[in-house]
Order: sequence, then C-alpha cells, then structure tokens
Amino acid sequence: MRGLIVEAGRPDSARYVDDLPEPAESEGQVLVQALAVGVCGTDREIVAGEYGTAPGPDDRLVIGHESLGRVISDDSGRWQPGDLVAGIVRRPDPVPCVNCLVGEWDMCRNGQYVECGIKERHGFARERWRVEPDFAVGLDVSLIDVGMLLEPTSVVAKAWEHIERIGLRARYDPKTVLVTGAGPIGLLAALLGRQRDLDVHVLDRATEGPKLDLVAGLGATYHSGQVCDLGFEPDLVLECTGAPPVIAQVIDQVGPNGTVCLTGVSSGGRKLALDLGGLNRDMVLENNVVFGSVNANLRHWQEAAHALQSADHSWLSALITRRVPAADYASALENHPDDIKVVLDFAS
Amino acid sequence: MRGLIVEAGRPDSARYVDDLPEPAESEGQVLVQALAVGVCGTDREIVAGEYGTAPGPDDRLVIGHESLGRVISDDSGRWQPGDLVAGIVRRPDPVPCVNCLVGEWDMCRNGQYVECGIKERHGFARERWRVEPDFAVGLDVSLIDVGMLLEPTSVVAKAWEHIERIGLRARYDPKTVLVTGAGPIGLLAALLGRQRDLDVHVLDRATEGPKLDLVAGLGATYHSGQVCDLGFEPDLVLECTGAPPVIAQVIDQVGPNGTVCLTGVSSGGRKLALDLGGLNRDMVLENNVVFGSVNANLRHWQEAAHALQSADHSWLSALITRRVPAADYASALENHPDDIKVVLDFAS
Repeated sequence: MRGLIVEAGRPDSARYVDDLPEPAESEGQVLVQALAVGVCGTDREIVAGEYGTAPGPDDRLVIGHESLGRVISDDSGRWQPGDLVAGIVRRPDPVPCVNCLVGEWDMCRNGQYVECGIKERHGFARERWRVEPDFAVGLDVSLIDVGMLLEPTSVVAKAWEHIERIGLRARYDPKTVLVTGAGPIGLLAALLGRQRDLDVHVLDRATEGPKLDLVAGLGATYHSGQVCDLGFEPDLVLECTGAPPVIAQVIDQVGPNGTVCLTGVSSGGRKLALDLGGLNRDMVLENNVVFGSVNANLRHWQEAAHALQSADHSWLSALITRRVPAADYASALENHPDDIKVVLDFAS
Repeated sequence: MRGLIVEAGRPDSARYVDDLPEPAESEGQVLVQALAVGVCGTDREIVAGEYGTAPGPDDRLVIGHESLGRVISDDSGRWQPGDLVAGIVRRPDPVPCVNCLVGEWDMCRNGQYVECGIKERHGFARERWRVEPDFAVGLDVSLIDVGMLLEPTSVVAKAWEHIERIGLRARYDPKTVLVTGAGPIGLLAALLGRQRDLDVHVLDRATEGPKLDLVAGLGATYHSGQVCDLGFEPDLVLECTGAPPVIAQVIDQVGPNGTVCLTGVSSGGRKLALDLGGLNRDMVLENNVVFGSVNANLRHWQEAAHALQSADHSWLSALITRRVPAADYASALENHPDDIKVVLDFAS
C-alpha cells in the first residue's frame, strides 16, 4: 500500500512509496482507512533529518501524527465500521514509568515513550493504519473535514487544563488571555479561551491575511507589534511562538497572580541579555507562574474532541488553508506565507 | 513607651525612642506585651531608606514584622491574658481587592494592602502593640523562645502549599527537594520538606559554620558549590537566594515534571546572558513549572504554627544565632558571618 516515509535521521529522504506492507496486527485490533493527516513543524524537522526514530532495525519511518480515519474493522468490538477516529500519538513504552502507569504518558518521566510517526512507531500517513482500541478517539461524523485538528487541539486542551489546575492554588477568576502566535496551536488555544468566555487577545507578526479574520471570527482581538505595547496586563498567557524575545516579554507583561503557559519548542543555543533578577523579583512579588506543557493524554484528547464538536465547524475548516493529495507531500511541506494548517488528503 | 522607629525613606534614621504613644485602640482589640522581634533583610532595607512607608502624615514608622508577644487583654474575649501570639503582617486595605475579600491578601491584586512595620502601618518593635483578634495567631507556650520564627515560617508554609497544589495538576509524588540558600527562609523550607518525609538537599556558599550542623540536624544533606555539580535532578526546588545565576541553574537542573518555587526578592537591573530558548525548550518538553511566592494568609500562618510546634524546639533555637536587647538594635542590624536569625529582645 502507499504511504509517506523517511529514512530517519537522513535529510530530505521523504518519499511517497507504494510498497508498504499492510499495518502489523501488533499495532492494534482496530484497522482504519486513512482520510487525512495534518502537517506540522515536527514533520518538517523529521523530513529535514533533525528528529525522528524508526521503529525497528529498518530505518524507515512512516511519518504523520495528526490523524483522521474511518474504522474498517475492530476485532475487540469496541469500534464500529464507519466510525470516525483519530489515533493517540504517544504511548507508554513496554516498561512504563510511574506516570505512564497511571495513563499520564504526557508527563512521562523517563523519556522511554514511543510516538506514532515520530519516535520508534510508524505514523498515520499511509492508506491504512492500526490502533489499539483504547488509543483511538472517536469524533462526530460532522467533523469529517476537520477531525485531523484533534491532535493539535489535544495539546491545547492539556495546556488549558494545567492552567486551570495551577490557577486553583488560590482564588481563580481570570478575565483576559493573551495568545502569542497565530499558528494552528495559537488559534486553537484562542478557540478554547473563547469557549471559556474569556476576553481573548491574539498577537502575531502578520499584519494581513487569514489570521486576522480567524481571530475576529472567534470574537477575539488581534494585535501585531510588541507585547509591551498591548496596553494591558493579561491574567493568562499561552505562549505559542517559542521565540525567546516574546517569551521574555510575556513573563514581564503578565498581571498579578498571572500564569504563562509555554507551548512552543524553541531551538535554543542563542544567548539573550536578560534581567533575570528583575523578572524573578516580579514573579515573586506578583505570585506569577510560568510553566511548560507538552503532548496530551487520553482525557485531553477527549476534551479536545468535545471542544471541536462545540466549535463553529466552518471556522475550523478555515484553519485548513491547503489540502493536497498525499502524493504531493513535497508541496505540503513547503511554507507558504498564508499557511495555517496544511493537510495531506488520503481520501481522494 | 519605647520602640524602634525610622523616618520612612530616610537612610540611617533608625532610633530606639522612649516617647512612643501607647498603641492606638484602632489598631485592634488585643493588647499585647512584646517579647521579641526577628530582624530580616527587609528591615535592613527599611533602615537604609530603600523601602517602607509610614502610616500617616507623620513620617515615623515603628518597624519590626516578625513578632512574638503575650496577650495583656482582649476586649473581644477571643484571647486570654498570657496567651502567646504573633501578629499577621499584611492586611487588606479598606477597599479590598477581589483576592483580599476572600482572605487571600497574600495574592492581593491591586497592591493597596498595608503591612505592619513595612507599609503604612506600625510594626511590632515596641513594648506594647495591638492587633485585631482575627489577625493574631496563637502559639503553644513551649514556643516562647522561638515563636518569632512564625512569620518566616508562614512564608515557607505558603510556598509549600502552592508547590503541592500546583503539583496536583498531574500525578504528584516527589522524592527529592533542593533548597538553595541556608538563611532562615531556606532552613525553614528544608524543615517543612523533612516534615513531609522528603529527601532534602540544601545548597549554600558556606563551607563551615552553624548552617552545616543545622542541615545535618534535620537529616538533610548539605552541599556547597554549583547546582550543576549536584549529581541529581531534584523533583522540587525552593530557591531562597534571589541570585540570578542560581535561579538560572535551578531552572536548568530541576527534573521532569519538576517545580521551582522562587522566594528570594532579587534587586534586579543587571543583565545576564541566558539561553532562554534552551530553558524554554526544556521547560516545555519536561512539563516544568517555575513560580514565585510571597507573603502568607491566615491558613498559612496556622500551618506554620503547627509546623513549629511539630519541630525539634532545640533545632529551632539554634536558628537564632544572636539575641540582643532592643536598645542595641544597631548591633542586631549588622551582618555577622555566622548570623542566621538575629532577634531583638523586648522581654529583658
């Protein structure tokens, strides 16, 4: 069958091949027909050879971790043929850590997890894939065109859950949220903020294009320019750029008892002159929290499915700025100026 | 009556005077005979004229916020003559913010609070003081020699409560704690860590002196040198130095899902070259939290009283490295190399 593979660690080794074996039964009892796979920065890193590990001695890795498919069959009886599902990306390794043991693989302590399409397990960019019944997440059929947004939404659902759990260390009643970066993660973070009835502000470099309309479509406020020029101190910040100058500014700008959630993975290695003493003083005197959040576990995937179902489906569709046949993966991996989410189509 | 005052904002204006009026009845129904007042860095800043605001048009401020006294009388009937009490330092202002309204003045959002001995309200370094019945905290009589440690312990009790509440965002089962700085706050943080049965490590610059014995006396491990040479990644860090290089190191060193609690108030204004992108990447991929904690509310003062009562009282006594008569305040304000906590004695 056909699918998109890389030779893990080798730059520009991505190929759309037609000699993939059928998915191994050891991959799970649920056999799924692929519909679509979203593309993200991690896929570009894997294709560039900077990231990614193949499952076996063979160095071929099927990529794709933002999945959507239709169940063909399920030997466990849990899922019905035709059900719309996505596959959870991260799985505990065979010797799970204490966190993986309780289902919190997003908080894995030993780094021994595997990730479909990324780390030691094949991904979803192939015509058919398999998943264990407990690692499939169901989606309403109305989400058939946008359900591949479930994976990035799960990341954002976890970030919001942790913001709220951390907020409950004391009285918690936030009003204003700043989201930095209007990529898919930032826009989905803004969506979940609006679903919580918060006053949401999104800051990005773009001064025109679809991001402005998408933010307006949520009833949120769009800003370009500097964080320090916002004119208010947000109660919460979801930092989705990973850009060090933006990170320093949001830590400075967040209001008293405020929380900054970091979700962007920076490349690191460059030094920035920073008044860390001043930042520390402000964080102490204002009881501020800065925390990192990565990945998501089952409850976050389920919350994400609920969030997508509750959202305006045409707004979700507008996040998907390009849909390309899977065979044209090379075009999907290009960065076009107005891209938000690019999707590989397996249905056509 | 006698007491220790400064002219707020004027350097080196501290004087031990004998013409103080009796405490105003408006200060509270509980009249208290002072026993002792602990001295801390904030007092030194106030005496240096860098901090502190007098209560009225008169610029005289009675300083002292780490209090201990014996109740003389209480018109409300809540406290009995002879009861050992300390006075809570921070109070909501007459127009309280939403947090002060629910008793969380430690999380005050508008900065309009007052603080006894620091900001717009007289402190406890005088022969007699008054307090509202709800802002006195009782101590067992066995703590008569060390009860002035209640205020710094309340700060640490809040820090621990927030560490634990934040930890509960996911599975929480920490084993190892690093405390940076073996001053009173650091040592009391270590005490509360040992009371939680954790493996506590304390790092300080001192290579000899009472700090090493005090750490050993808790069953904790003493380290001097660099954080990066510790040889392990702590689950929790209580940062009690406020020194920017130490802050950067502990954020780097804390283990997966780890929490760094910042308690030290840095002076700020100096820039440090920092790989903020690398720190951000680690915080995201490891789900780390860094947060600031200041002050304490009633429940933290009550927890602190319980913590002191449960501690080895001779260990607590050893924290107090000098006791000087209140009239010798100038000696108390000096920094001696082996000082941990210096106390002004009002009982003699």
